[in-house]
Amino acid sequence: MLDEECARGPGRLRVAVLVSGNGTNLQALIDAFPKDDPRVELVVVVSNQAEAFALERARRAGIGSRVIHHRDFASRAEFEDALALVLRERGAQLVVLAGFMRLLGATLLDAFPQRVINVHPALCPAFPGLDAPRQALEHGARLSGCTVHFVDGGTDTGPIIAQSVVPIAPDDDATSLGDRIRRAEHALLPLVVSWFSEGRVRVTGRRVSVLPAHTTR
Amino acid sequence: MLDEECARGPGRLRVAVLVSGNGTNLQALIDAFPKDDPRVELVVVVSNQAEAFALERARRAGIGSRVIHHRDFASRAEFEDALALVLRERGAQLVVLAGFMRLLGATLLDAFPQRVINVHPALCPAFPGLDAPRQALEHGARLSGCTVHFVDGGTDTGPIIAQSVVPIAPDDDATSLGDRIRRAEHALLPLVVSWFSEGRVRVTGRRVSVLPAHTTR
Repeated sequence: MLDEECARGPGRLRVAVLVSGNGTNLQALIDAFPKDDPRVELVVVVSNQAEAFALERARRAGIGSRVIHHRDFASRAEFEDALALVLRERGAQLVVLAGFMRLLGATLLDAFPQRVINVHPALCPAFPGLDAPRQALEHGARLSGCTVHFVDGGTDTGPIIAQSVVPIAPDDDATSLGDRIRRAEHALLPLVVSWFSEGRVRVTGRRVSVLPAHTTR
Repeated sequence: MLDEECARGPGRLRVAVLVSGNGTNLQALIDAFPKDDPRVELVVVVSNQAEAFALERARRAGIGSRVIHHRDFASRAEFEDALALVLRERGAQLVVLAGFMRLLGATLLDAFPQRVINVHPALCPAFPGLDAPRQALEHGARLSGCTVHFVDGGTDTGPIIAQSVVPIAPDDDATSLGDRIRRAEHALLPLVVSWFSEGRVRVTGRRVSVLPAHTTR
């Protein structure tokens, strides 16, 4: 990857959110960027699960949504082609995976190069994959946190944009730690999306830099 | 491992420090626990490198030191037997690896069960092994830190006692980040040793708990 500006067009940044479940990170974005927000427009919510409560959150917020079920497609590439079509139709400039429980591959990522980000409930590269809070507890880590990173086809392996730390308490279980990490995600993810809307995110190889505020528009 | 108290005998805690180089973490312990400290006595410094500056630090602080060079022994077990002999002679109750650049095996660890701790310049399990600050930079992590953990024969894999976070700045190189992490180590390592001196460290499986102050003696 060369050093380049990511996901910055004229006007408001058009953001798509991919979900699979409850959608609390979607809710954090909805709360951070209301309909009249000058920086960010949430243009579509796509779920691969018809029963995801995130779809109800989108409806209540007046954001269009689509269900694209991966099981309806013969291959991952065809699923991702359908996904990319919807995202393009809606003019998405940034694609946020917010509890989206499918690995994405080259078909989608090549369609949105350096435009797909994910939030993972651990301090990457520690504890990738499923059940990260439980992994952290079972490892005996004294702290954990969350990571917003570019998606690169691996499991939570892409270039890291931002990380936020949370302590682990002696009496934590996976639920209490997961809740604490999720609250950190709800603060970090909208912040990162705002950086994209301000054109402040740069990538050089694996290193991401965030330019100071007000240096670009 | 069963839940048990670690490294707490009557009187001052007798601490041995193993070094290989400059010994800045040894210096942090010397500064934190002067000769008349009521909690901790630094009883011996052992280096596997004759030219380690840490030996000079020990001399200036009036702490006995020994050089035990691993190359003088036919096997790791014999090296560790010699090491264990010196540590036992000095009555060490806690063995602190402070920049000690040899992996230790069962011979030493079985002689000092749950009595050997290490400080690693990363947030374990991220970035184990050599050049951890460089690893963190090359990975593009946004933060790193240090970990004090029990030594278990793996590379920086043992149960975690304490962790401290440091930010990574956009213009960091391995030296500047390493320096920042080292300063965090210099605060964290003496703190952990003081916990041992107060009998507050418990281990259950991989999970370490630190009891509140003044609940034990």
